[in-house]
Amino acid sequence: MTPLAVALGDPSGIGPEIVAKAWALRDAHRLPPFFAVGDSRSIAAVWDGPVVRISDPSEAAVRFPDALPVVQVEDAGDIVPGEPNLAGARCSLDALELAAGLARSGVASGLVTAPISKAQLYAIGFVHPGQTEFVAERCGVASDNVVMLLAGPTLRTVPITTHMALRDVPDALSIELIMAKARVTERGLVKNFGIAHPRLAIAGFNPHAGEDGAMGREEIDLILPAVAQLREEGIDIVGPLASDSMFHERARGHYDVALCLYHDQALIPIKTLHFDEGVNMTLGLPIVRTAPDHGTAFGIAGTNQAHPGAMIAAIALAGDAVRHRATTA
Amino acid sequence: MTPLAVALGDPSGIGPEIVAKAWALRDAHRLPPFFAVGDSRSIAAVWDGPVVRISDPSEAAVRFPDALPVVQVEDAGDIVPGEPNLAGARCSLDALELAAGLARSGVASGLVTAPISKAQLYAIGFVHPGQTEFVAERCGVASDNVVMLLAGPTLRTVPITTHMALRDVPDALSIELIMAKARVTERGLVKNFGIAHPRLAIAGFNPHAGEDGAMGREEIDLILPAVAQLREEGIDIVGPLASDSMFHERARGHYDVALCLYHDQALIPIKTLHFDEGVNMTLGLPIVRTAPDHGTAFGIAGTNQAHPGAMIAAIALAGDAVRHRATTA
Repeated sequence: MTPLAVALGDPSGIGPEIVAKAWALRDAHRLPPFFAVGDSRSIAAVWDGPVVRISDPSEAAVRFPDALPVVQVEDAGDIVPGEPNLAGARCSLDALELAAGLARSGVASGLVTAPISKAQLYAIGFVHPGQTEFVAERCGVASDNVVMLLAGPTLRTVPITTHMALRDVPDALSIELIMAKARVTERGLVKNFGIAHPRLAIAGFNPHAGEDGAMGREEIDLILPAVAQLREEGIDIVGPLASDSMFHERARGHYDVALCLYHDQALIPIKTLHFDEGVNMTLGLPIVRTAPDHGTAFGIAGTNQAHPGAMIAAIALAGDAVRHRATTA
Repeated sequence: MTPLAVALGDPSGIGPEIVAKAWALRDAHRLPPFFAVGDSRSIAAVWDGPVVRISDPSEAAVRFPDALPVVQVEDAGDIVPGEPNLAGARCSLDALELAAGLARSGVASGLVTAPISKAQLYAIGFVHPGQTEFVAERCGVASDNVVMLLAGPTLRTVPITTHMALRDVPDALSIELIMAKARVTERGLVKNFGIAHPRLAIAGFNPHAGEDGAMGREEIDLILPAVAQLREEGIDIVGPLASDSMFHERARGHYDVALCLYHDQALIPIKTLHFDEGVNMTLGLPIVRTAPDHGTAFGIAGTNQAHPGAMIAAIALAGDAVRHRATTA
């Protein structure tokens, strides 16, 4: 298949190290071919394996077996692992922009993004909440119409609201929002995972899913009406389920994705179970996009301690999604 | 040791079955001696092992090796597993009252409670939110001064607020409440678990623990000040931690108990990891009290499918707590 583009993220974070480690383990994990986009010196600073700069992404496939191919962007200035700076932030943004463009044009089959530093990016004028929203904009999709899916080996979850104060979530929820996110999620599972008839389960918002209104009314006023309308549309969705009883091993077997109402309701179970293998996939885009579900980890950058599991999983999942899209298209 | 009193809960629920199964597995799990309190017919309806009615709890220890000792309360009327009724609710309340009294007087060394039906109990005039508050009142302790601890093999969590609408939680939180719950939790771990210097970790309320106020202010306004004052008192507490990153395997090794701000923040991780072994222990009481962390499960009552794991764990943990209290008193 056409190689994936992997944006290296902040050059002082663990991104370069985990991308290099993923390449080193490409055969053991049967990873699809990929090339990195960023400053190749950020890899050389933390890894002594073979790196090859390529001038054109079309060279990636043939070089991939023997060295990690890198499409170089303007260099990142002085790179000190663990010590981010503005030049590094510019480099990470260049890499993201280029890698996203290559995926949109089809030169790359999909996009994988290593972690960036939001604080550094804000300092250079970045206005998006995160990479997801940036990529959505570049793809011409409103960020309300994309879905953040967290995927681990035994669980997939979707937070219907994401990065907002928990106090503000009840008023941000609506029947329309729940339905929009559920529809994108369902289509995303068909396209990217090859699940013909995805089974959705939605969590309750309150303890014990509200106990028939005894503890909160979001279930009655918002979730149940949304579920009823979604079922009328033919979407296989159940709930609201008590959120503390829907993530254990037996319960997980009953659905393909759990829709959650707020960030931590979706993130606690996935990270509790699959901390080193969690992948963030963006649904609703014309391109495949995945990312490891962790941050830059500046504290351990350059010490060879970074666990490449989530990056490996992100690359593998992107490759699977590319293949499923080719089949279902 | 003096036997534990185990209230059988609703006679039509799975309580009688899991207590009987726990007795049958007493040697494999090295369970401390216990006797049941309830209607012995509710056990006979679902189990054909040996049961012996005893008229005085002092007989329990000598009868325990050969049969499940039962202190009979007024009988429960017609018992049909899976079909609760008001006579059964009265029976479950009688059993709870008597078992709690025996534990308070020292005739029993501690109290274990099987699940009751709140809906049925409310119908007969029960005014407490649950068994915990009932037992607290009988022990002369204000329910604000008791703590609900969830314990599994690799994790303990405490919800600082419990059964209320999530929308109402931000306004229910206060520095004083957090500090009160933290103090009871710390003392409870010393007394009941024999942990000399408990390590507490408190979760953030908002995504990523608020990111320095970018997403919510509960961390800055409430949690950080409470943590600072608790540390001044000599309590070993860290946080607020991002709640999605504090429950995975490596993270759990850094603390003895996780304080959580709302019900599902505490219950999702414990039930995701330890659904069949979760124990609810009440801290802050003069007596030891534990319960399996699940409900009556009327849907499977009488079908021999009930998993006794949590009841076994509740009895074992109560026995351990009785021994630790004897040592630290």
